[in-house]
Amino acid sequence: MKNLKGALIFGQSGGPTSVINASAAGVFTEALKNKNITAVYGAAHGIKGVLDEKLYDMSKEDKKELMLLKNTPSSALGSVRYKLKSAEVDETDYIRILEVFKKYNVRYFFYNGGNDSMDTCNKISKYLIKNGYDCNVIGVPKTVDNDLFGTDHCPGFGSAAKYIATTIMELSLDARVYDKGQITIIEIMGRNAGWLAASASLANMKGHGADLIYLPEIPFCLDKFLKDVKRVTEANNGKCIVAVSEGVKDKDGNYISEVLSNANKAKDGFGHTQLGGLSAGLADFASKNFNMKVRGIELSLMQRCGAHLASAVDVEEAFLAGQTAVRVATSGETDKIVVFKCCREKGYKCTVELMDVALAANTEKTVPLEWIINDGTMVSEEFVKYALPLIQGESKAPLEDGLPRFAKLKKILA
Amino acid sequence: MKNLKGALIFGQSGGPTSVINASAAGVFTEALKNKNITAVYGAAHGIKGVLDEKLYDMSKEDKKELMLLKNTPSSALGSVRYKLKSAEVDETDYIRILEVFKKYNVRYFFYNGGNDSMDTCNKISKYLIKNGYDCNVIGVPKTVDNDLFGTDHCPGFGSAAKYIATTIMELSLDARVYDKGQITIIEIMGRNAGWLAASASLANMKGHGADLIYLPEIPFCLDKFLKDVKRVTEANNGKCIVAVSEGVKDKDGNYISEVLSNANKAKDGFGHTQLGGLSAGLADFASKNFNMKVRGIELSLMQRCGAHLASAVDVEEAFLAGQTAVRVATSGETDKIVVFKCCREKGYKCTVELMDVALAANTEKTVPLEWIINDGTMVSEEFVKYALPLIQGESKAPLEDGLPRFAKLKKILA
Repeated sequence: MKNLKGALIFGQSGGPTSVINASAAGVFTEALKNKNITAVYGAAHGIKGVLDEKLYDMSKEDKKELMLLKNTPSSALGSVRYKLKSAEVDETDYIRILEVFKKYNVRYFFYNGGNDSMDTCNKISKYLIKNGYDCNVIGVPKTVDNDLFGTDHCPGFGSAAKYIATTIMELSLDARVYDKGQITIIEIMGRNAGWLAASASLANMKGHGADLIYLPEIPFCLDKFLKDVKRVTEANNGKCIVAVSEGVKDKDGNYISEVLSNANKAKDGFGHTQLGGLSAGLADFASKNFNMKVRGIELSLMQRCGAHLASAVDVEEAFLAGQTAVRVATSGETDKIVVFKCCREKGYKCTVELMDVALAANTEKTVPLEWIINDGTMVSEEFVKYALPLIQGESKAPLEDGLPRFAKLKKILA
Repeated sequence: MKNLKGALIFGQSGGPTSVINASAAGVFTEALKNKNITAVYGAAHGIKGVLDEKLYDMSKEDKKELMLLKNTPSSALGSVRYKLKSAEVDETDYIRILEVFKKYNVRYFFYNGGNDSMDTCNKISKYLIKNGYDCNVIGVPKTVDNDLFGTDHCPGFGSAAKYIATTIMELSLDARVYDKGQITIIEIMGRNAGWLAASASLANMKGHGADLIYLPEIPFCLDKFLKDVKRVTEANNGKCIVAVSEGVKDKDGNYISEVLSNANKAKDGFGHTQLGGLSAGLADFASKNFNMKVRGIELSLMQRCGAHLASAVDVEEAFLAGQTAVRVATSGETDKIVVFKCCREKGYKCTVELMDVALAANTEKTVPLEWIINDGTMVSEEFVKYALPLIQGESKAPLEDGLPRFAKLKKILA
């Protein structure tokens, strides 16, 4: 536990979220008032900004703009998907990072991301320790996918879940207006974890949800899908709303989007890739089997950048995670990630704790199988109890001319 | 001008919007307190509900739920796309409508929809006049496409424009986070009118908009599209955000979505229809011509049902249009449509007027060509001045459990 004096670098990594900048706001505002932190830098495009020595001097930004980051979606500093090789295999990047850290006297390094980014964070942390360079390294969690191990949930998930549930309520009303059959297939993000797709069930609670919810935790069978849809349309005046995770796979582990794409390729013999994603592919597949309108809808990037529907709980927790990183690092903690521990009895309570960053690296946390019910087509009340507190409240950018006023950073290089 | 005493039927027709139910709320709340109106019916699925005698007794609904309709998206009564044949060609439907009107002593008939629906409204009105049946018929305008002739704008447009502009601001931030080229193609509704696609320019005003905006008013050329995108990516660090109307056509009047689909069909010789819509097709086309990531995004149904982003101006005007229909009809007006006349000098002012419903039937109002600039890739400040007042303010459903509380109707048949 070393109390260090020096500069801080904060980087954003991986797919952006509605609240990743709220964590940045937490880091920057807290760091700028800490006397042990001599300079506050934002790395352009995550670790790439360190390697390229593209560091923004955050002390040059207006305080008001830094607070507006709380409600500005996407990664304001720029993001990156860059996986560091193991230092044993190739030390080049590490040598460069250490060189930059020494040049700017960097004694605090925070990295904001999901499990891949925590791998980066862990590798840098271990390399610095091994090389005797004092620098407190803290991971700040972030991912809409909610698949990070060791934390009750991740900043970014609550807002995406609120976007998905609200949008499915609206789509569910829209997709049922005509007096004839219609199948609507809504594709939701989440890679190999079904947390986001499961959020469709929050809309069900309000009576305007999805009839079928498919998560990647359960093998997806195209024949069973047809039977499920048939059952619902027959019981439901020809209407069926399906929420499906982009990451559903067949029993052999092949992504269904690829299975459908390959089936089409085999058919036309030209090897064309299928246009659109899973929802388009499933809609095409269903339309060949049902004599009614089938519409595929992809919630696409909107679900992860829809800051106008951010959850206040999520925004505040993301900010807190950033603040906490500064507080614990300046108290001498290193090689850790900020995690949430939550209690849902007698009201929702969330506290921040620390965990070894190595534990969060590269591990995927998926939806408990016992929460998946109705023969793999729905999630249980347990999920609703888990997710509902995370979508509460509203927090969004002030409006100017009826549109959000997002943060404007000067981004002055150090 | 006849002041009649009798029942009222209100029907919703065509594609739903975020605020079509706000007009319903205006009609129902105003009609239920008018002593000349002896019964208030909502027709299930528009004119089909009249033909099938499926009429909901709106007096049985809770007043609180009727007011919640103001912020409930989609058509609460159910909608329909049903084009009445000319009475000269086939009188069957008209005879049935008159029969139902007589049975329920219907003296007020209001129909809420776009230009196709105003055609229905006009035909029924003229038939009733011709057959000497006293019934005041009023059209209530509605369409996200904003293509209705004779009114400054249509209820539904402002909220969809606000959704589109806000979403494009968020997408624009998200699509620019990585330090490498990326082309993002966003498909927007509007059929043959570019009002909705033009709304992307409201996001530009805020500095987070689209680099290229293509409207259906100008012929779309795939080669020029590639040149436009090339120019933008070269000037813009490899990034390009495109907003394109679903209705863009080539110089011969063929929809580009079909042109791309036919090109693929010709290529694979199997006549497969293209999956996904225009954005997927254009993304596929662009990805063959640019060595960078290309993503197609369809705003799909979300843009017309995103009531959580409704404009307060739009909600109030939609409500007013419904209220006005009742007030003018009970004052003896018939065969008219409620239209908006607006002034934008010294602040925005909107007043309601009446126009012969025949004038609104089947006419499409498109974006003035002089508002389309930069060689057909942008809209001018004139459009912004026109549209900006329409997206002002917020009006949405109260939240329960962090999610919207939409109206719950009992729908008790008369």
